[in-house]
Amino acid sequence: MTRIAIVGVAGRMGRTLVNAVQQDAEATLAGGIVEPGSSLVGTDIGELAGIGKLGVTAADSLGTIVDDFDVLIDFTAPRVTLANLAFCAEHGKRIVIGTTGLDDDELAELDGFGERVPMVFAPNMSVGVNLTLKLLETAARALGDEGYDIEVIESHHRHKVDAPSGTALKMGEVMADALERPLKEYGVFERVGQCGPRTDKEIGFATVRAGDIVGEHTVMFATEGERIEITHKASSRMTFAKGAVRAARWVAEQGNGRYAMQDVLGL
Amino acid sequence: MTRIAIVGVAGRMGRTLVNAVQQDAEATLAGGIVEPGSSLVGTDIGELAGIGKLGVTAADSLGTIVDDFDVLIDFTAPRVTLANLAFCAEHGKRIVIGTTGLDDDELAELDGFGERVPMVFAPNMSVGVNLTLKLLETAARALGDEGYDIEVIESHHRHKVDAPSGTALKMGEVMADALERPLKEYGVFERVGQCGPRTDKEIGFATVRAGDIVGEHTVMFATEGERIEITHKASSRMTFAKGAVRAARWVAEQGNGRYAMQDVLGL
Amino acid sequence: MTRIAIVGVAGRMGRTLVNAVQQDAEATLAGGIVEPGSSLVGTDIGELAGIGKLGVTAADSLGTIVDDFDVLIDFTAPRVTLANLAFCAEHGKRIVIGTTGLDDDELAELDGFGERVPMVFAPNMSVGVNLTLKLLETAARALGDEGYDIEVIESHHRHKVDAPSGTALKMGEVMADALERPLKEYGVFERVGQCGPRTDKEIGFATVRAGDIVGEHTVMFATEGERIEITHKASSRMTFAKGAVRAARWVAEQGNGRYAMQDVLGL
Amino acid sequence: MTRIAIVGVAGRMGRTLVNAVQQDAEATLAGGIVEPGSSLVGTDIGELAGIGKLGVTAADSLGTIVDDFDVLIDFTAPRVTLANLAFCAEHGKRIVIGTTGLDDDELAELDGFGERVPMVFAPNMSVGVNLTLKLLETAARALGDEGYDIEVIESHHRHKVDAPSGTALKMGEVMADALERPLKEYGVFERVGQCGPRTDKEIGFATVRAGDIVGEHTVMFATEGERIEITHKASSRMTFAKGAVRAARWVAEQGNGRYAMQDVLGL
Repeated sequence: MTRIAIVGVAGRMGRTLVNAVQQDAEATLAGGIVEPGSSLVGTDIGELAGIGKLGVTAADSLGTIVDDFDVLIDFTAPRVTLANLAFCAEHGKRIVIGTTGLDDDELAELDGFGERVPMVFAPNMSVGVNLTLKLLETAARALGDEGYDIEVIESHHRHKVDAPSGTALKMGEVMADALERPLKEYGVFERVGQCGPRTDKEIGFATVRAGDIVGEHTVMFATEGERIEITHKASSRMTFAKGAVRAARWVAEQGNGRYAMQDVLGL
Repeated sequence: MTRIAIVGVAGRMGRTLVNAVQQDAEATLAGGIVEPGSSLVGTDIGELAGIGKLGVTAADSLGTIVDDFDVLIDFTAPRVTLANLAFCAEHGKRIVIGTTGLDDDELAELDGFGERVPMVFAPNMSVGVNLTLKLLETAARALGDEGYDIEVIESHHRHKVDAPSGTALKMGEVMADALERPLKEYGVFERVGQCGPRTDKEIGFATVRAGDIVGEHTVMFATEGERIEITHKASSRMTFAKGAVRAARWVAEQGNGRYAMQDVLGL
Repeated sequence: MTRIAIVGVAGRMGRTLVNAVQQDAEATLAGGIVEPGSSLVGTDIGELAGIGKLGVTAADSLGTIVDDFDVLIDFTAPRVTLANLAFCAEHGKRIVIGTTGLDDDELAELDGFGERVPMVFAPNMSVGVNLTLKLLETAARALGDEGYDIEVIESHHRHKVDAPSGTALKMGEVMADALERPLKEYGVFERVGQCGPRTDKEIGFATVRAGDIVGEHTVMFATEGERIEITHKASSRMTFAKGAVRAARWVAEQGNGRYAMQDVLGL
Repeated sequence: MTRIAIVGVAGRMGRTLVNAVQQDAEATLAGGIVEPGSSLVGTDIGELAGIGKLGVTAADSLGTIVDDFDVLIDFTAPRVTLANLAFCAEHGKRIVIGTTGLDDDELAELDGFGERVPMVFAPNMSVGVNLTLKLLETAARALGDEGYDIEVIESHHRHKVDAPSGTALKMGEVMADALERPLKEYGVFERVGQCGPRTDKEIGFATVRAGDIVGEHTVMFATEGERIEITHKASSRMTFAKGAVRAARWVAEQGNGRYAMQDVLGL
């Protein structure tokens, strides 16, 4: 059983992480941290998460729970995360980091801890997305030079401000690398009017924005006579939480080093 | 018996039309046109279509076959179609037009012929597509002003030269009319880069081009908590060709006017 | 203000209903029932729902709260629902029923209460599903006798205990009525082994159970050359809960009778 | 350039193979065989295939064209195929076999040629289906024991007499093997009535029969928060023909041995 503590346990992602740990048969909830001075210190983190009393109360510092946990999960902010990394290095703990928005200096600092802490650092913990990237690489290698046209279609909720999504671009890049077709040159991001027939090697992108769609990505490989479609659909942030818990269980058995989700999944 | 001539008889749609006319008990194949100067002038259009000699040879101008046909079927390109319309107006012929990609000027020019020629103009001749248009009108009226976002996604084979498809635009127009949101103002045909959040009333279009897809159209109505999708998938060109022949038989008995498939099908 | 009580208030649908009633300005939460003997008797139903104390505690029988409510909302199991209907008949209450999986005898018994209780009985309370039923009726009338095969495919989460879903059956019934093909005779609910070719008039059902799928239904009309698919996807239970509360407010002002969501929505 | 000859060149599969070879930039059409005594001996095989004169005429025996080709493609009948295998063994040719229906003795006989002929023998040459099997194996290994439910949905035309399709079962078996969950024990082929909640390890199958669907298979891996779907859609027999041509190009460079499509594709 991997004993897991969660930073920012009162936030939306923190509460989802509590749920994910509770659902995992090989992990146990060992502690949760809220901001120092919060009125929530001392409340039950199960009740915070809306899943009933768990008998684990919210603490305001890692020091308080240092003997209780093996792995910390941290989806917070760069400076908080780096402080927690230092704590883990000092006390022989492991960490799973989903924090985004680190600048170059912060990234370098984080990287430096790789020699002293077993850590998983990934901007997207979704097991499904990471597996999908692997499947796309396999499919692109097998089909891309055999007359199959590649298209990426992504759908997101009405509030999303950029297009295509970062995940759609990452999917495109994985295939572009496999096929040596730089997206700069081969990516086609709009087709309007008399745009002419499709060229053989282009990788097309199409964007849909509607309703509350959390995130759907389909990559189509189509040729005369058949089509393969590989689709990922996210239905809640639970997808990221579950990936984080899986990473926590995995990193509990690793030596020092900075790992990615591809390592966790053995892809 | 309706005597039908086909423009662009050597192309993929042209050859399918030859098949469809042959299969129709109330229509007869009266002629076929290929591009002037083509090496195919004088060949048998049945052999061109892969169904054996029919005793009708490919001509290079409508003038050559003016006495042979009653109705012309034209799935070609805007300028070609307008020239053929002028010919029909001058010689008292009728015409079924499946050409797409006409710009506003070309549409206006086409419309002007309505007073002089009995014509069916429809971007998509299939029964299913035309029922779909009816369903879209119903759905748009029920949901469009109730917080549901509308998106049109269309997929076609790699050879298609224009986007969105004529059928996708027709779908958009049907909904735009029902909701009094002119596509000129509310249609969104590309989303690339930092394009900002979706606006409430826009009607979005996304285009996929790949493989041998005959034609797939999905209209999505999405809001917080649910989505309705209405999809049409064509699996062979024969669907359009049969509809075109049905339209040709119908228009053979109409007076001057510009008609739609809704008229032909009595929907 | 319509005073609403909820049966099965500790379940997933029950808790969502608590949320929906709380969000509705014209309804008030009057009571909630849990199973007799449950350790949850006496707990606050707002806390059960994860939205904080509401000052209404979970009871273990309708008798306890008989003076507190006007309309009962019941998404439970057939025998429980029928007992609750009897209670409502006896005590002059109204009821909204979302329970599925009733067999013929249970349906007949339920129907019998129509003379004594104002009730809304609907396998699916969402606006989208009810519009979809309308679209299906239109499509079935236009295509069902023209050589188009009809299939219903439904997907739900791993916890659902019955198949096909009540909504899938309702969709089938709407089309069966339009085409005069009773599901008893024309519904096909399993195809395994050497089951022979499809017959012309059957209406097929296929069931998928996986993950956290809230509810997806697709009806396919397919013939040589084309397919139409009409799909409804629910992305949160809130869709059904909001519809149920809307039905409760509506039925509070009706006389005895068994009503459907079409009545509530005026479709 | 691989020089390819086709047995049974006048049949539907033979003509499709002619098309596929013509479309392949690294293969050339070297000959075609029709039944001895056929009136088609001496006709142009391009014209037979409906793609115009190719300058290669139909022969009535392999002996006639023995110097012209490197690889034979054979989708015929067991005894014909075994005779052709003997010819290839004797004359140092290679062969791609898509013939089905061999009994155990014929399979043993075929297998015996593996020491003397480089041959690809596969009941399904579709590159896409074979790649899909590989992707499913990868996905099942990564997700199957991590709380993802597995479902297989297949759709075929109205004439298909068995369910689930052989390909759906093959997909199930590949995943069952990867997860050590024999389909005999874990496959669920029907869900009707009060069937109870889904069990963790079952692999579900759902069947759709409608219209002219050539063959569509979707495997869904779903858990709380996300779904991966891997879909294969066949749109014509071209898919098998293209796989055969790819196999022919590949086997042209192999030593003696009996190979499968997995070998051809390097999966």
